[in-house]
Amino acid sequence: MSTVPFFGELSPVAYRGPESRDPLSYRWYDKDRVVLGKRMEDHLRLAACYWHSFCWPGADPFGGETFLRPWMKAGLDPMAAARMKADAAFEMFRLLDIPFFCFHDLDAAPEGATLAESVNNLKAITEVFAAKMENAKVRLLWGTANLFSHRRYMAGAATNPDPEVFLYACAQVRAVLEATHALGGANYVMWGGREGYETLLNTDMKREMDQMGRFVSMVVEHKHKIGFKGPILIEPKPREPTKHQYDFDVATVYGFLERYDLLADVKVNIEQNHAILAGHSFQHEVALALALGIFGSLDMNRGDPLLGWDTDQFANDVGELTVVFHDILNGGGLTTGGLNFDAKIRRQSLDPADLLHGHIGGIDTCARALLQAAVMLEDAALTGPLAERYAAWDGEEGRAIMAGERDLARLADRAVADNLNPQPRSGRQEYLENLVNRYV
Amino acid sequence: MSTVPFFGELSPVAYRGPESRDPLSYRWYDKDRVVLGKRMEDHLRLAACYWHSFCWPGADPFGGETFLRPWMKAGLDPMAAARMKADAAFEMFRLLDIPFFCFHDLDAAPEGATLAESVNNLKAITEVFAAKMENAKVRLLWGTANLFSHRRYMAGAATNPDPEVFLYACAQVRAVLEATHALGGANYVMWGGREGYETLLNTDMKREMDQMGRFVSMVVEHKHKIGFKGPILIEPKPREPTKHQYDFDVATVYGFLERYDLLADVKVNIEQNHAILAGHSFQHEVALALALGIFGSLDMNRGDPLLGWDTDQFANDVGELTVVFHDILNGGGLTTGGLNFDAKIRRQSLDPADLLHGHIGGIDTCARALLQAAVMLEDAALTGPLAERYAAWDGEEGRAIMAGERDLARLADRAVADNLNPQPRSGRQEYLENLVNRYV
Amino acid sequence: MSTVPFFGELSPVAYRGPESRDPLSYRWYDKDRVVLGKRMEDHLRLAACYWHSFCWPGADPFGGETFLRPWMKAGLDPMAAARMKADAAFEMFRLLDIPFFCFHDLDAAPEGATLAESVNNLKAITEVFAAKMENAKVRLLWGTANLFSHRRYMAGAATNPDPEVFLYACAQVRAVLEATHALGGANYVMWGGREGYETLLNTDMKREMDQMGRFVSMVVEHKHKIGFKGPILIEPKPREPTKHQYDFDVATVYGFLERYDLLADVKVNIEQNHAILAGHSFQHEVALALALGIFGSLDMNRGDPLLGWDTDQFANDVGELTVVFHDILNGGGLTTGGLNFDAKIRRQSLDPADLLHGHIGGIDTCARALLQAAVMLEDAALTGPLAERYAAWDGEEGRAIMAGERDLARLADRAVADNLNPQPRSGRQEYLENLVNRYV
Amino acid sequence: MSTVPFFGELSPVAYRGPESRDPLSYRWYDKDRVVLGKRMEDHLRLAACYWHSFCWPGADPFGGETFLRPWMKAGLDPMAAARMKADAAFEMFRLLDIPFFCFHDLDAAPEGATLAESVNNLKAITEVFAAKMENAKVRLLWGTANLFSHRRYMAGAATNPDPEVFLYACAQVRAVLEATHALGGANYVMWGGREGYETLLNTDMKREMDQMGRFVSMVVEHKHKIGFKGPILIEPKPREPTKHQYDFDVATVYGFLERYDLLADVKVNIEQNHAILAGHSFQHEVALALALGIFGSLDMNRGDPLLGWDTDQFANDVGELTVVFHDILNGGGLTTGGLNFDAKIRRQSLDPADLLHGHIGGIDTCARALLQAAVMLEDAALTGPLAERYAAWDGEEGRAIMAGERDLARLADRAVADNLNPQPRSGRQEYLENLVNRYV
Ligand SMILES: [Co+2]
Ligand SMILES: [Co+2]
Ligand SMILES: [Co+2]
Ligand SMILES: [Co+2]
Ligand SMILES: [Co+2]
Ligand SMILES: [Co+2]
Ligand SMILES: [Co+2]
Ligand SMILES: [Co+2]
Repeated sequence: MSTVPFFGELSPVAYRGPESRDPLSYRWYDKDRVVLGKRMEDHLRLAACYWHSFCWPGADPFGGETFLRPWMKAGLDPMAAARMKADAAFEMFRLLDIPFFCFHDLDAAPEGATLAESVNNLKAITEVFAAKMENAKVRLLWGTANLFSHRRYMAGAATNPDPEVFLYACAQVRAVLEATHALGGANYVMWGGREGYETLLNTDMKREMDQMGRFVSMVVEHKHKIGFKGPILIEPKPREPTKHQYDFDVATVYGFLERYDLLADVKVNIEQNHAILAGHSFQHEVALALALGIFGSLDMNRGDPLLGWDTDQFANDVGELTVVFHDILNGGGLTTGGLNFDAKIRRQSLDPADLLHGHIGGIDTCARALLQAAVMLEDAALTGPLAERYAAWDGEEGRAIMAGERDLARLADRAVADNLNPQPRSGRQEYLENLVNRYV
Repeated sequence: MSTVPFFGELSPVAYRGPESRDPLSYRWYDKDRVVLGKRMEDHLRLAACYWHSFCWPGADPFGGETFLRPWMKAGLDPMAAARMKADAAFEMFRLLDIPFFCFHDLDAAPEGATLAESVNNLKAITEVFAAKMENAKVRLLWGTANLFSHRRYMAGAATNPDPEVFLYACAQVRAVLEATHALGGANYVMWGGREGYETLLNTDMKREMDQMGRFVSMVVEHKHKIGFKGPILIEPKPREPTKHQYDFDVATVYGFLERYDLLADVKVNIEQNHAILAGHSFQHEVALALALGIFGSLDMNRGDPLLGWDTDQFANDVGELTVVFHDILNGGGLTTGGLNFDAKIRRQSLDPADLLHGHIGGIDTCARALLQAAVMLEDAALTGPLAERYAAWDGEEGRAIMAGERDLARLADRAVADNLNPQPRSGRQEYLENLVNRYV
Repeated sequence: MSTVPFFGELSPVAYRGPESRDPLSYRWYDKDRVVLGKRMEDHLRLAACYWHSFCWPGADPFGGETFLRPWMKAGLDPMAAARMKADAAFEMFRLLDIPFFCFHDLDAAPEGATLAESVNNLKAITEVFAAKMENAKVRLLWGTANLFSHRRYMAGAATNPDPEVFLYACAQVRAVLEATHALGGANYVMWGGREGYETLLNTDMKREMDQMGRFVSMVVEHKHKIGFKGPILIEPKPREPTKHQYDFDVATVYGFLERYDLLADVKVNIEQNHAILAGHSFQHEVALALALGIFGSLDMNRGDPLLGWDTDQFANDVGELTVVFHDILNGGGLTTGGLNFDAKIRRQSLDPADLLHGHIGGIDTCARALLQAAVMLEDAALTGPLAERYAAWDGEEGRAIMAGERDLARLADRAVADNLNPQPRSGRQEYLENLVNRYV
Repeated sequence: MSTVPFFGELSPVAYRGPESRDPLSYRWYDKDRVVLGKRMEDHLRLAACYWHSFCWPGADPFGGETFLRPWMKAGLDPMAAARMKADAAFEMFRLLDIPFFCFHDLDAAPEGATLAESVNNLKAITEVFAAKMENAKVRLLWGTANLFSHRRYMAGAATNPDPEVFLYACAQVRAVLEATHALGGANYVMWGGREGYETLLNTDMKREMDQMGRFVSMVVEHKHKIGFKGPILIEPKPREPTKHQYDFDVATVYGFLERYDLLADVKVNIEQNHAILAGHSFQHEVALALALGIFGSLDMNRGDPLLGWDTDQFANDVGELTVVFHDILNGGGLTTGGLNFDAKIRRQSLDPADLLHGHIGGIDTCARALLQAAVMLEDAALTGPLAERYAAWDGEEGRAIMAGERDLARLADRAVADNLNPQPRSGRQEYLENLVNRYV
């Protein structure tokens, strides 16, 4: 039974198997079940996010709050409200038995009257977190700084035309990076929601990209200085809130990391909803990050492909995630990364139990997908045909070409001399799609 | 009067001024008019493309040919047809008084029964081109190889799982690159219409990107070997014909060039329609390429932002192009690049005169936009406020930060110590939009 | 000089001609200029909207207020704040010399502790409006009820599963309809921002559409009962805030009006941004409404075709509006309708002057487009070729077919007997596009 | 074993159960299994389409044929080729044991030198069909006329500016409607691929919609005249090949049917890919058609939500179809309608077996979804909560409102008098989504 009044009579959510008809149980998430030699919990490294469930009031661009959470009541002392919120949050982590959480500085602690006070507020609340974590199982997957909500950041944080805003952002990031380190966080995330533009008419992209390059470089340096071992993760998103964000997608972030020589320290945190807003499938973004060596972690949610904004719904498509997890398992799995549910219940989902339903759905979807992906991988259902398809490149000439031992003229001459007329082979897409459906 | 029967009674298109009501005259394109110290013709470097006007029969995915061009009649000898087509094409170049053209190998010359025969066909027709060019003004902006229409390329050219297809592509590119060189071409373009995938289920992206990296590197090496001075240009397009193309957009190509160490030799050829298919404005792609130092040339057309495919219509939005040309002029102008009308008349535009109307509209739109952009630049209408907006970064501390002389802790400490509370300034977007409209 | 401190030193905006370089003047809007026999002001019937300029704090889904308007300060008495806001609003109307405005009940007056108090608040503020209107030029284009912001409406107003919400909405609409009538409003608008669904899993579309049909019917009956002469206008929007709204687009609203027998009393208020969100051009929606006989009024703004949400920017594309106004003039012009700037300055446009810049840009764009459309219409530039294109349908057989005097078999027999082989004619799209550009 | 050389060694596809690892077996489609009192085959009424599998050569806008089907070889006598094609098609129907097929006139028989010859060609091939059908199980779900591929239709068939084209279309439709009747077809379909526009500049929408209204009315009259009992089905599609098609979506077609008084005879054939191109989910279009009473049949396929064109892939998302079939079963099931696989294998799927893989995947997806939908419906998993959600409307006041026995003032007065303050209830979206996933 819950110990925090907000959750009323709700009990911890337990695994009860696929046949369970209890909507507040797990049907697939069986944390101790061993999959490919590892516990499911250790594979998935599931995390709940603080902001959507505890800070968002249910408002949207056309309507005000719907949730009326007790800690959002007008007139409360902000630090007292922050502690009430923390109680509810950690209670939800307990009820869900989720091993990780994530937060922004401003989710946790209110902005103070001065920058110094803001920093102190954060320190105070992270001490509350630390105390709670001692008595709980939950650990920190990552922390991050909110450099997008306050009006000072309306024209960017690192990319602001005013260097003082850049400095302000330095202070915020330093505080959260150190808090993350103190709390034993596994990663540190940067999402540049305002690092972009509304109009090119007032924007110098070259300057702004250079500023952002400098900023991330300084964060990397500081991470090493304080001994934080986790990677810095950039979370790509193409647009929203701005018209264009510099961290558009995985490929764009890769170019940025190359340009500013950051590949050794920075990886990506990929979100499904951001992927589709950029015109890519989730699998594409994950597979590309793996191919480029910058895969870090996932923001696990789903967008609506028919809507043009970030709906951040809980994942519920097992088929989509099965192939994603297949690629991740095949690429070595999540290491420091995890699956952060950057997802929110709909604004009409008013009941505390709805918070549990949302997470349960997401968690079970991940668990089921993991199980299927593992079998698919063990069967070499996809990897087998794939290796076979490219096998000719593993021949002598193929290897010589890729090793740079051939030039254009020589290959062209050979093509003409041998009167090459290569015949295409079926791509077998429908066969492969059916094959995947056999596992789903 | 036209000397080629296809164009019937049509006469050369001449500049007649903005008040002209002759639909077959230029109202803005006054080639000898000097703008910012250079002739308009030398600024714009306009090019007609061979494929859309002379090779496309008017078909679409739901309907067959509509144009019934004489050189497409069934039963003609392919080389004779190619010569008829060349006659019509060069006649159009003459009627339009356009200084450049562009072509694919397969636009110009038919595929032969063998690769050797294909190469010979191309050689024969480029000799026809060379002869025509001696007596004409038109020069070659760029050549390119069609590595996407034939079924052998259905699963990619450089990225094909079969190395023999890679070799075949080498032979084609070598032939066109050398033909381009022989014809005095200013650039060589690569568009990877099949370098992508239909499904990730049968695709090894890492292998394929490496193959593409190798391929482009070989082309660059060969260019140097034969003494071709123009740049290699990659033309980004996010998708279509495939589900995903590796040259998705300017940012993605930049990352590719960094990864395979090609920045010194390869630039981008940016197309408006491809820009919007990738979710970017045309101005964005141009400004980004300029900022990254990889701006090469433009495929000048327009897409329909409400349609999800490449409509390749003739540009007709002066406002859109004015800001694009402003940025290009401000960035040093087109050097080897030009404005290639990669645009086609609608399939219902059956008359030979429609070919002229399409080009006239596009050319006048460019000319008018150039004139406006030049005045805007001379007035420093946008550059003035822009410099002012970022001026604080040119101060001592700003320069020190950007020079890497500050670290995170120091800046954070200063922000707290100084109790910074930077106040945002208006971005003045509406003011700037109105300002631009004053020039349009 | 402004009499309201908020606008500081700003002076009324006057017409100064196309060469004016004063950013706070009109370059095209010359209200008394006669166009096609009518004053420009009477053609355009421009309106400012209350909500975006005076109620929106500059917040977006990822950030809080930026504008810090005096009347939004925490701790103010809500009715006093409402009066301050009205002062600023009417001062802007005066500075812009705009002849109309529009408002929602909740824009004008705060929600009270009870429904009765809310109704009284609205009454009190509309008396303030009435008093101001006596001494001002501005009139009311339309009023409307906000049935979407409060949490009671989260699952719809008319379409709510709870009939009490339906009743609540009746009370609100009755109050605003009567206030609109009292203030001499020319129309009454209904926008169903919550009349749709988030998920079909909990939605009975048939019930909900029937509820909405009943609701609109009751509003129409009440309008007649109180003697309100203006039309009821439905404003289509496909989605946002919900996943799907029942008033998706003009065609959908037309079907709804047919189904519930409302064609005699209800027309549409078409917004550019909503048009493109629905996948249509603005011109399409206007032309369709004209063709179907349900054209009412316009919400004049612009969306960004590359963004998937309602950006509600000020119109600035003269070319787009020229063809729209051409069709409207050709269809008889705006009668009770007008051009309501349902547009907001960007959240970075912090200065009071930015409110003027936004409106000036929109107004001048409309004025310029009107002038061009009028000339195009006088020249029969488009209407001439159009009539000619369909002329064959005005022949005897064409008229007989359309009059229902032919049946399929007879026409089919004739086609075979006459061995018909109709030859297509050029659609001349590029020619027509160039023609329009001659006027732009 | 196949009797037609094209399919080589392939054997009929049989049901082998969910554990089958034979890719050429059915895992879920067990035609005689009784579901909700009806055989699965009778529920699903599956149909193969002629065009994609047998007429499309594998070409796309950037590439030529890939399939090289024997009956497409250059130089064949067209009628002989048509018979070869019919052999292959009916052999595929047999191998798949599919109970229905669909065709366009031009799929079946080649266009002749004259209209009369075309009509005769169709007659000859439908006699071939009739003969084959005598010895086979397969029946005709629907026939349709191709009024979009030939250049005469480039500007529309019914909506063409040339009445002779309208007549030509009459002849074609009469022939196919009568052929459909003769072959015992269950429905007749109209898809208006060219009934739309490329540009409004040359389009009179009112005229064109009236022409289309007249055309469909004539088809309906003829259907009655010849005693054809099946419904006429219009297939909505928003765009492609044109910029805008008049049959945009279900709601638009509904308005059209109302306007031209066609509701009694015409229903809709809904395609998944067209639904998403119009910005709707498949379930939305189906549920809306059911609510409006115009649900007819389905074109079963899937589009790629990230691509802007009609990919017409085979359905493979069981979750999506489960809710669609739930709604259909709940609405009375398919009556004359069926599930036509308007789907094509990818152009890289070269092998005859790929045709089977595509259909098997689609068929099994439908079968599995049907099974799940039936259980969900038996459990009242969704219908129960839905009825409960709207229950208040079934009360006395709710019924009185919907019966038109209340007016606005009375309800408004009651709301104020009772001081209504309705409290929202959770929409339970996540709970319901998880519930559905329990069945999937
Ligand atoms: Co995220
Ligand atoms: Co998101
Ligand atoms: Co191009
Ligand atoms: Co293109
Ligand atoms: Co509006
Ligand atoms: Co809007
Ligand atoms: Co279809
Ligand atoms: Co389709």
